[in-house]
Amino acid sequence: MNEPRSGENSPEKETGRLESFSDGVFSIAMTLLVLELAVPALKNPPTAGGLWSALARQWPSYLAFVTSFFTVLIMWVNHHGIFRLVRRTDSILLFANGFVLLLVTAVPFPTALLAAYLRTPAASTACIVYGAIFVVIDFAYALLLHAVRRNGGHLLAPNAAPEINRRLRDCYLVGAPLYLVATLVAPWKPWLTIVICTILWVFWAVGRAEGRSAFAR
Amino acid sequence: MNEPRSGENSPEKETGRLESFSDGVFSIAMTLLVLELAVPALKNPPTAGGLWSALARQWPSYLAFVTSFFTVLIMWVNHHGIFRLVRRTDSILLFANGFVLLLVTAVPFPTALLAAYLRTPAASTACIVYGAIFVVIDFAYALLLHAVRRNGGHLLAPNAAPEINRRLRDCYLVGAPLYLVATLVAPWKPWLTIVICTILWVFWAVGRAEGRSAFAR
Amino acid sequence: MNEPRSGENSPEKETGRLESFSDGVFSIAMTLLVLELAVPALKNPPTAGGLWSALARQWPSYLAFVTSFFTVLIMWVNHHGIFRLVRRTDSILLFANGFVLLLVTAVPFPTALLAAYLRTPAASTACIVYGAIFVVIDFAYALLLHAVRRNGGHLLAPNAAPEINRRLRDCYLVGAPLYLVATLVAPWKPWLTIVICTILWVFWAVGRAEGRSAFAR
Amino acid sequence: MNEPRSGENSPEKETGRLESFSDGVFSIAMTLLVLELAVPALKNPPTAGGLWSALARQWPSYLAFVTSFFTVLIMWVNHHGIFRLVRRTDSILLFANGFVLLLVTAVPFPTALLAAYLRTPAASTACIVYGAIFVVIDFAYALLLHAVRRNGGHLLAPNAAPEINRRLRDCYLVGAPLYLVATLVAPWKPWLTIVICTILWVFWAVGRAEGRSAFAR
Repeated sequence: MNEPRSGENSPEKETGRLESFSDGVFSIAMTLLVLELAVPALKNPPTAGGLWSALARQWPSYLAFVTSFFTVLIMWVNHHGIFRLVRRTDSILLFANGFVLLLVTAVPFPTALLAAYLRTPAASTACIVYGAIFVVIDFAYALLLHAVRRNGGHLLAPNAAPEINRRLRDCYLVGAPLYLVATLVAPWKPWLTIVICTILWVFWAVGRAEGRSAFAR
Repeated sequence: MNEPRSGENSPEKETGRLESFSDGVFSIAMTLLVLELAVPALKNPPTAGGLWSALARQWPSYLAFVTSFFTVLIMWVNHHGIFRLVRRTDSILLFANGFVLLLVTAVPFPTALLAAYLRTPAASTACIVYGAIFVVIDFAYALLLHAVRRNGGHLLAPNAAPEINRRLRDCYLVGAPLYLVATLVAPWKPWLTIVICTILWVFWAVGRAEGRSAFAR
Repeated sequence: MNEPRSGENSPEKETGRLESFSDGVFSIAMTLLVLELAVPALKNPPTAGGLWSALARQWPSYLAFVTSFFTVLIMWVNHHGIFRLVRRTDSILLFANGFVLLLVTAVPFPTALLAAYLRTPAASTACIVYGAIFVVIDFAYALLLHAVRRNGGHLLAPNAAPEINRRLRDCYLVGAPLYLVATLVAPWKPWLTIVICTILWVFWAVGRAEGRSAFAR
Repeated sequence: MNEPRSGENSPEKETGRLESFSDGVFSIAMTLLVLELAVPALKNPPTAGGLWSALARQWPSYLAFVTSFFTVLIMWVNHHGIFRLVRRTDSILLFANGFVLLLVTAVPFPTALLAAYLRTPAASTACIVYGAIFVVIDFAYALLLHAVRRNGGHLLAPNAAPEINRRLRDCYLVGAPLYLVATLVAPWKPWLTIVICTILWVFWAVGRAEGRSAFAR
């Protein structure tokens, strides 16, 4: 929204609606993850012990649920951190953001795949898909950052360029390689994919905690 | 809300609640699309290769997911673009908007239909339904635009009438005919329906990108 | 929130968060209705004609979807109309509102019941349950209105009492009797329940449209 | 967000986006509970009486639905009550809040478990899981309160510390012990778990109602 128009809201409001729309998508994607936790079907008659074992056998579901939940939460925090620095929107930004949201809404699918096949010989396939979606999301964030800083940064708040550049560097030099490793180890050690993904969100959560600043990376 | 009333909020707030309610519906409809991506069931014992083939055979699901997601995203952008020009609401506008939202929430159903039957002899039926819902949604937007500009445009912001008229013309002369073609080719070439729908959202996305103005069409 | 407290937001903001929370629940309940529309399973090989017949046989699903959607939309409009007149919240109002939301989130269940059994001999049961939930919701709104106007109306905006009283009268004298009739005819003519429910939302929509005032009843 | 930064929004807005994101998660988790209410499958031909019995046999589902709905509603009110006292956010608060949200989104799972197994010999297992999640959520709230008041309370509004301390005391001395009792009785009297959980939310609702202050505990 570059020039004043008749009947136009202020640019702040435009960013505001985009952010709250994105927040809606993030929060729903996180909440839909619970649908992947299935009530186990037991042989008749069900027994207390049988239900305990069935629930225990479902541990890959719980692991996938927690890992995906916090990974999407970190993504939301990053999304927030980026839009904190944006003053205006345009169509390229809008569709770069749409691409991020597409992938975020897709996360419940590889999560369910992982939960279903982690304890089977098909685990490597599930883990490759699971790791790969985070590699792709990392590149989607890089795309979003490029969309935000292009054209001399006229969409940005004053002095925001260095932080955008730092975040872009993190995407390419930290996020992408680490998730790529998580994906590439899957054919040998599928569980290592999950371990790396879990370490990543714990590490970023702690890293942020030390910085003491909630929405800055 | 045409005359001041006791205890009334400002007209801006009325539009605001309507917009954020609509945003909620749009974002949930887009996120529910993921439920259509089913975890494939494999014969026992599942193998890594078997899971790859099963995932690959599901390609119509991924295509339908992406196409529906971005089509609804474009609709959300258009919705936004219309309400940017609206200053007041009344009941006719409210129900015209309700009709748009009804159809938007319905989109996951033809999407799932398409995903289930695209590779079968029933593909033409699924594709007709899929194309037809976008024809109907296009007319619902036309209805919304009529609701917004009627009565001398007293619901509109100053100088907004020309853009409303331009959007209405686009509904009748661009959107409706193109989606109608997408629907009518389905009995001969079902996959052409998807190709046209995909071209349409890519085209609109790029068209907007060139205009450099995020929420103007 | 009756007396100033340390660290308190303004009363407007309290109502605001309650309203936007309620909006979230309304919009999700309306969107979840689509999950009731099932992709029909066809005998192998599926044919285009077979899919058309299967889709046509599902007409009770579409009817139930549309009726429930617009009925919940009318409820949302009413909710909005009530909270437009409210200046403060307290715990009784909060839980009266919670009771309304509980019933609104439950609407997809009788809707799915109706869709599943409308063409069977069990239709009367499904229609009684469907009609009954709207009777109960009507009383929940009455409860909400009592919660809003009690204690001399200190929660209300100035001069709002007459409209609250009129809405309360409508609940008891219009909504409750009509939905009760819709429920009681079910054992004889189940389809009449749907017809009455459909007439009701169309009638209210048109009635509002004539008043030209979107959020006033 | 402790020091001014370039391009930064005001601290109020930061808390605002965190709150509305949390509201989204709460409202979706509450609305997804309805998916646990299943349309009963009847033997052919279905009869009106058969559907009544099948619906009646599902009473644990309704009970679990209502109890979970209001319990999450109380949690939302508490969440609101806490954030009313918060002026700034940081990363530790953000992840403590994320932990609360993770558990809130998980509530539909033990609810579905309870509904499925309450009338079977496996009821004790389901009730232990159901009670246990509320014990864990209570501790998550305690964690959130610790996150909020640490470092001399620089995140808090002026004079908010005493109320935070009172809420923390309630978590440890009221919420945790009562939900622990509800969990521990399950092996002997599974239904007593539900009774205690139901009494708890009714009691807190009434307790709040007497205080006449909606969002203060």
